[in-house]
Amino acid sequence: MPTLLILVSNADEYIRLIESAQLPDLKITRSLEDCEIVLGEPKLIRDTLPLLSTPKWIQSIYAGVETLMDSSLRRDYILTNARGVFGELMSEYVFGYLLAHEKKIFARFEAQQANRWDRFESGRLRGRTLGLLGVGSIGAHIAGIAHSFGMNVWGYTRESEISKQVDKYFHPSPLESDGLLSKQEQAPAIQRFAAGLDYLVTVLPRTEDTNKIVNADLLEALPSRAIFINVGRGNAVDESALVEALNQGKIAGAILDVTEKEPLPPDHPFWTTPNLLLTFHTSAISYPEDIVRLFVENYQLYTKGKPLKHQVDFERGY
Amino acid sequence: MPTLLILVSNADEYIRLIESAQLPDLKITRSLEDCEIVLGEPKLIRDTLPLLSTPKWIQSIYAGVETLMDSSLRRDYILTNARGVFGELMSEYVFGYLLAHEKKIFARFEAQQANRWDRFESGRLRGRTLGLLGVGSIGAHIAGIAHSFGMNVWGYTRESEISKQVDKYFHPSPLESDGLLSKQEQAPAIQRFAAGLDYLVTVLPRTEDTNKIVNADLLEALPSRAIFINVGRGNAVDESALVEALNQGKIAGAILDVTEKEPLPPDHPFWTTPNLLLTFHTSAISYPEDIVRLFVENYQLYTKGKPLKHQVDFERGY
Repeated sequence: MPTLLILVSNADEYIRLIESAQLPDLKITRSLEDCEIVLGEPKLIRDTLPLLSTPKWIQSIYAGVETLMDSSLRRDYILTNARGVFGELMSEYVFGYLLAHEKKIFARFEAQQANRWDRFESGRLRGRTLGLLGVGSIGAHIAGIAHSFGMNVWGYTRESEISKQVDKYFHPSPLESDGLLSKQEQAPAIQRFAAGLDYLVTVLPRTEDTNKIVNADLLEALPSRAIFINVGRGNAVDESALVEALNQGKIAGAILDVTEKEPLPPDHPFWTTPNLLLTFHTSAISYPEDIVRLFVENYQLYTKGKPLKHQVDFERGY
Repeated sequence: MPTLLILVSNADEYIRLIESAQLPDLKITRSLEDCEIVLGEPKLIRDTLPLLSTPKWIQSIYAGVETLMDSSLRRDYILTNARGVFGELMSEYVFGYLLAHEKKIFARFEAQQANRWDRFESGRLRGRTLGLLGVGSIGAHIAGIAHSFGMNVWGYTRESEISKQVDKYFHPSPLESDGLLSKQEQAPAIQRFAAGLDYLVTVLPRTEDTNKIVNADLLEALPSRAIFINVGRGNAVDESALVEALNQGKIAGAILDVTEKEPLPPDHPFWTTPNLLLTFHTSAISYPEDIVRLFVENYQLYTKGKPLKHQVDFERGY
């Protein structure tokens, strides 16, 4: 009989939902030694990992599992992460902030506070181009909503072209990634991608390949009207370069749900950089009902000995 | 050869677009006497109406044509209004404000200004119910976007059930509209409709039937979590009742693009009513390229002697 250890802070809600799913033969345990399956938050899993005897399958309740990728940690188990449940929330966040910008929601509130009937014009999403840096299930969902608003969607990925919702893909050329092109020859794909955007949305996981991919060159390539949103991981951004780009008006604004250090240090320039909004890593939270639905689906595959969904590749990092 | 008089403030842009459409046999005129067709803003049309000799067809560049409905005005012409072009803009506005509310965009900005890494939870649109008071082409567009966010859509109309995007319709019963039910017997359809909503969006034209349809009873029927948005016309709202509902916390908020008097008088309580946002009739403007596309389509029908699109019924008022 498979035993399940639940390593989350709001365990009661997870226990209630899993018990009501009445999974055959599953026993919820509180023993670290005696658990075959773990469902939990990556940080709690990492701290507990050395104490587990022989975990076979660990399901993360988050999408980001970078804390479990350290090569010093054991990898003798199947790790699955949460995917396919955050797209809707991320889309709500992204379009909430894009629309707040285009509809000038802050400026209109200021006009109201000043008792000023001021009919300055709104912008619109229709016809604008949104670029996705990274296109997985979250990016695909954002692309779908963008289309329903009449927008164009471009995607920059290493090589995959999974989502049909993306109108145009850009990839690094093999010469680029090998560093065989001189700086002049490059006009790298990522800069050609950036130059055509109204909005750049980063949904990348934290890996070595994504470090500071949003750097001074990329920010320079964006049009000055562009808005940058990061709902992936903070490592993707060269933070000094972003502060400079905003201070100099090279782009129109940035909305950051994630930063390199979280919580953001009190003296970090992001707190007061012009046209930069912080949202404190709240764009997508894990709703227990979503995660348990995903766990139940995977548990049924597990008991049949079939491959699990959303397996993490320890080499790739996501 | 049909002659066209253009009665808009930014006429140059309209003339340029119509000329570049190269419509057969159409001559643009500046003569009030000698015009067969008029394209214009309702207020300018109304002021000019007595001076026109024999207008055959008048195309409004706005959706709202209430200024032309006064029974003292001539009706010896075909009036068409602008429809099908505002849905996208209205949807951007509605979802911009709904998401700003759910994602707590103002509160997060306040946290940032206070240097506070504060991870209070966001709300979400998914699973929520949006109610449309009035379902025409604008309502249908809003309904479509609501579905792409995983929401439910209810609609309240006199009797039409035009949009298939609406999940559930409510109509006044014949007894209700005849006033044959006593107050107690009623539990009117509109209140049953309101009671199930998270968001109420009014997209009604100004007619006698829509006067103060959003009254104290309707506001009382809404759940206290509800947000009310008016992108139709100001006459639909009993303004004192709305101020009272917001002051007493009977609903969670209101976003008004339109008010009974515009510009809003400086001493009107709306300027400072809690949880009420004003946007000064900016939710949808008429883009000349959209209006000219619509005019060209109708002109082609006109020259073929076919019925025009979007004809206004003077009795109904829209």
